[in-house]
Amino acid sequence: MIIVADNLQITNRIIHQAIDDMNPEPIQDLVKACEKAGADAIDINSGPLPRDPEKRMSFLVETVQAMTELPILLDTVNPRAIEAGLSVSKNKAIINGFSLEPTKLESILPLAKDYDADIIGYLLLPNSQVPTDESECLSVALELFGEFQKAGVAKERLIIDPVVAPLMWENGSIHNRAILSVLKTLPELLGFPVRTIAGLSNLTTGKVHKDKRSLLEKTFLPMLAASGLNMALLNVLHAETMRAAKASTLLMKSGIFTYEELDSGMAPN
Amino acid sequence: MIIVADNLQITNRIIHQAIDDMNPEPIQDLVKACEKAGADAIDINSGPLPRDPEKRMSFLVETVQAMTELPILLDTVNPRAIEAGLSVSKNKAIINGFSLEPTKLESILPLAKDYDADIIGYLLLPNSQVPTDESECLSVALELFGEFQKAGVAKERLIIDPVVAPLMWENGSIHNRAILSVLKTLPELLGFPVRTIAGLSNLTTGKVHKDKRSLLEKTFLPMLAASGLNMALLNVLHAETMRAAKASTLLMKSGIFTYEELDSGMAPN
Repeated sequence: MIIVADNLQITNRIIHQAIDDMNPEPIQDLVKACEKAGADAIDINSGPLPRDPEKRMSFLVETVQAMTELPILLDTVNPRAIEAGLSVSKNKAIINGFSLEPTKLESILPLAKDYDADIIGYLLLPNSQVPTDESECLSVALELFGEFQKAGVAKERLIIDPVVAPLMWENGSIHNRAILSVLKTLPELLGFPVRTIAGLSNLTTGKVHKDKRSLLEKTFLPMLAASGLNMALLNVLHAETMRAAKASTLLMKSGIFTYEELDSGMAPN
Repeated sequence: MIIVADNLQITNRIIHQAIDDMNPEPIQDLVKACEKAGADAIDINSGPLPRDPEKRMSFLVETVQAMTELPILLDTVNPRAIEAGLSVSKNKAIINGFSLEPTKLESILPLAKDYDADIIGYLLLPNSQVPTDESECLSVALELFGEFQKAGVAKERLIIDPVVAPLMWENGSIHNRAILSVLKTLPELLGFPVRTIAGLSNLTTGKVHKDKRSLLEKTFLPMLAASGLNMALLNVLHAETMRAAKASTLLMKSGIFTYEELDSGMAPN
């Protein structure tokens, strides 16, 4: 399982300030910490960037690339920001992302073809609502894949995000059980081993004691892994969740298991 | 998920001595601790009991029943001991268990019919070896179910154990990934919602540092839960594993999730 750090986000006040000031240092410190903690990729969640989207996303991408060669995810609803990020990226860049929402189909999906980039597709209804059950998730997946193919993007570029729901939502845990089935069903449904990603931090959105948050993250992550999840987006500075991710990967990988592998590549806990 | 304590076993020296001395106290202390830790049932692993099997198993069952009303599992290869346990049980008693091994089909399986008791069936070859892959596991399951029906036991009495392999075995982790699929497939294969059980302590058999053992247990257990496991046999005094079991149950249950449920019924950690 590939671990994507969700730490670099504009909702973090220090990062927000650093973007406003065009100050690379706090961003680079965070990226360094994420890489040390075992991140395999860095999600750049810039928010919608209503002002100077090109300038700000270029600054972000160049700042991150100066620190690391890890792949980056361009995580914004602003197509101008995504395009600017793609233009300056030297590291592998993934577009995050599109859905059946008409403006995204029109302005974000085509960038995957233009820049020959991987792109994340969210299983959301055209009005950005979460589908109500497994069968609706799967019909959204079929429709999304249809739009994807119409746009002329190579199918191997698609990464599907079935959207983890907050447990505090009335139907959150029911939805999350459904997406475990969805993850297992997608490759057969679409007829190829489509990659998948899920954002684990969504699970405990809201005010939750950190012990409970940690317990739920490290319990749901192995469930996602056992359902075939390829990439997990999470707070890589949650050491216990990272240990669960490492153990999940080892338990699910083909080939011989060795206890020593549990030590390697892990940040000290 | 129903949690069965695997703590009461003759390989524990104190328990061994208590059985030799017919001394109920150490056994009752352990049962009390298991119930307090959140066990839903107690596995009585007496070993083969070559001497006085009836007397010793009756003593064990009566000793446990004096402390708790929890269901008990009669875990021995000795059919005389099982029958003695069934004869004196007032609590719900489950036979643990049979397999395709001829002596078990002849002398243990019939007890399920005679005493109208639940019985655990292991997915093992007739020579007690572990099947090599998923398809062999499934053909063993079909054969086991065939023998079960021939013996005239109501199908609802069957609980299948797909046998967790030690990770230190060369193919242990491959086998364990296969049993996740087996768990998912069994209800459809056998045509009814057959219950399943797995012994988690097997996973880290051998000399393993306790942090790694704990990490692997609390990672593999949610994978089993997400694959539909009904009962988990484990060391209920491993507090972290128990927390993972509780969280797994909450994440997999139908109905509304509440954070408060993570507190209830849990032993303090």
